[in-house]
Amino acid sequence: MDEISKRSLDLHYALKGKIEVVSRKHVESREDLSLLYTPGVAQPCREIAEDDSKSFELTRRSNLVAVITDGSAILGLGDIGPAAGMPVMEGKCALFKEFGDVDAFPLCVDTQDVDKLVETIHLISKSFGGINLEDIAAPRCFEVERRLKELCDIPVFHDDQHGTAIVVAAALLNAVKVTGKEMGRLKIVINGAGAAGIAIGKLLLKMGFGNVVLCDIQGILCEGDEGMNAGQEEISRISNRNHEHGTLADALKGADAFVGVSRPGLVTPEMVASMNHGIVFPMANPIPEIMPDEALCAGAAVVGTGRSDFPNQINNVLVFPGIFKGALMVRAADITEGMKIRAAKALAALVSDDQLTPQFIIPSVLDKSVAEAVARAVAQEAREQGIARA
Amino acid sequence: MDEISKRSLDLHYALKGKIEVVSRKHVESREDLSLLYTPGVAQPCREIAEDDSKSFELTRRSNLVAVITDGSAILGLGDIGPAAGMPVMEGKCALFKEFGDVDAFPLCVDTQDVDKLVETIHLISKSFGGINLEDIAAPRCFEVERRLKELCDIPVFHDDQHGTAIVVAAALLNAVKVTGKEMGRLKIVINGAGAAGIAIGKLLLKMGFGNVVLCDIQGILCEGDEGMNAGQEEISRISNRNHEHGTLADALKGADAFVGVSRPGLVTPEMVASMNHGIVFPMANPIPEIMPDEALCAGAAVVGTGRSDFPNQINNVLVFPGIFKGALMVRAADITEGMKIRAAKALAALVSDDQLTPQFIIPSVLDKSVAEAVARAVAQEAREQGIARA
Repeated sequence: MDEISKRSLDLHYALKGKIEVVSRKHVESREDLSLLYTPGVAQPCREIAEDDSKSFELTRRSNLVAVITDGSAILGLGDIGPAAGMPVMEGKCALFKEFGDVDAFPLCVDTQDVDKLVETIHLISKSFGGINLEDIAAPRCFEVERRLKELCDIPVFHDDQHGTAIVVAAALLNAVKVTGKEMGRLKIVINGAGAAGIAIGKLLLKMGFGNVVLCDIQGILCEGDEGMNAGQEEISRISNRNHEHGTLADALKGADAFVGVSRPGLVTPEMVASMNHGIVFPMANPIPEIMPDEALCAGAAVVGTGRSDFPNQINNVLVFPGIFKGALMVRAADITEGMKIRAAKALAALVSDDQLTPQFIIPSVLDKSVAEAVARAVAQEAREQGIARA
Repeated sequence: MDEISKRSLDLHYALKGKIEVVSRKHVESREDLSLLYTPGVAQPCREIAEDDSKSFELTRRSNLVAVITDGSAILGLGDIGPAAGMPVMEGKCALFKEFGDVDAFPLCVDTQDVDKLVETIHLISKSFGGINLEDIAAPRCFEVERRLKELCDIPVFHDDQHGTAIVVAAALLNAVKVTGKEMGRLKIVINGAGAAGIAIGKLLLKMGFGNVVLCDIQGILCEGDEGMNAGQEEISRISNRNHEHGTLADALKGADAFVGVSRPGLVTPEMVASMNHGIVFPMANPIPEIMPDEALCAGAAVVGTGRSDFPNQINNVLVFPGIFKGALMVRAADITEGMKIRAAKALAALVSDDQLTPQFIIPSVLDKSVAEAVARAVAQEAREQGIARA
């Protein structure tokens, strides 16, 4: 066991849970009891019974997100079951509170049946103001999210897809700026055609980032290929418009950017050298597709990874607290494409032009002002779209 | 709107939720992030994947109870739906933390279909160390609880039934002691043959409290009566062994104790006067079946109600924090009849013989040492029964 694993395990044994549910008012007197509980509590119940939306004013729902997994794609560990996924979910909830002052509660659902997963989450959704789906395997995650978005009147957001897409888009916006590349003429290669890769591709295309080419273990994805899942088929119809075929190495020749959401070591210095002053985001965690120093030696113009020990840490924690905070602020029924794009732009804008360098394209993950700025932008977008309910 | 309702409503608007989910460790550095979240968090996940029971050591599960309703029997308000039930659930969670230092999280399930309710709760049960069912209407609550107890390997406890039964049993133990009555020869009349009334009856009979007669709106319940639900039929086979028929007034003649879980004003001074120096617990809330002063004038020997403005407040808050705390302490898979009886005895024993008077048969609801004492007794019982897992 490596040092960080050992220390994390010790910390987990010591903490006995990374989150805690506390009372917002101490109960010291009979009066406290009668106001917080019976008989006084009957009145807020009556108000909500008359007008459902009052639940956002009279209970914690207004600031509360569920972080829900089925345990099927936990980190790089795969399908380890719901109980084993809980340390990740609790960690995420702790970050929601620490970075966004959003209350978040972890739930593991003990089924991988899509119908049951959807029904279970839908039936408890009135307890929350938003639902963050987490570490649910592709392609199941697409259908689960799509159906829940239809059923629920609160935001449903699969962070592995959209949080990742937003933070990558923000980093790419600034990388383009710092390299002087032209956004609409980029060739961007994404390696890993799972939930994250597909979502990144879709968001970048929607934002006008030129041509996107997805690769997976069998090479370049092209419209009409056999054996694609529904999500891959969908994106194959809008990506790789030159209908390229071949390997990842083929795709990278002359490409402007690489985004890796795949496995350690898949990218060689030769591949980076074949790019057009490449923007290289090898985000496999903890070991990237190529180490930053190797990529830079091979001629990469900008490098960003998921790691905290190199510059430009491209991490979802820059997004999820703020995007939910913003949606909750205006009680949005959904987190729309427009809100995602606005979040990416707001995040990128936090690095001012005079701060921007190849080593600083994205704010620090420890910058606690990020969530508030992202939230304000997201809330404003929801208002402009007319989907704010408060 | 009365004064207490108005003030409670104002407090609810001001608080915006009575509970809050906080991080047990602040995130200040990249190291904190790497230990609480990725990459360090992978190790506790692996440990749980290898041994499910480690989830009680490495996540909050060890101290975490779900407070779950379907919104079908909220206080005296009836079926007002899940969102409207949430202020009660949140209040209960606040009390769990304040009195027992047990983390509790409120969930409303938006269905009243027994199969769906059971499946939903079962599928999320691995997120918790215990399940407190709350304000689910009879007779549905009996089947929901029975099936969940079979399915889940954590305690499932419908507080409206068993919490109420335990606190009544504790009060009755001390009332019997202070009046010098003989426990095994009592005639106890319970008015209200719903979830609470039936559970009280069953527990009192199991504890050896003489003869129990249940009444509902149609009068005395007797074995063989038409139109009883499953729970009523079950108790009719062990209660009212003299096969009495008639009204509540008939039942009370010569009875030693009255327990009301019904409606305001159903008991007259004449009925109390007809009892044998009656122990009178009119617990309808907020307005009891008979007011305490009326009952005392009519000759009641001891009176206890659910109200905080009279002596002897018989309130579940004396039970649920401690009984779950005890079960969680030893990771019991269930809350057994033995644990309930032990809890009642421990609660009664907190009033010492030299403190015991007709005006003081049960500890104050504000006494924060109660939960710990109840918990210790419950944990000890679980150990003695061999069902402790930690």
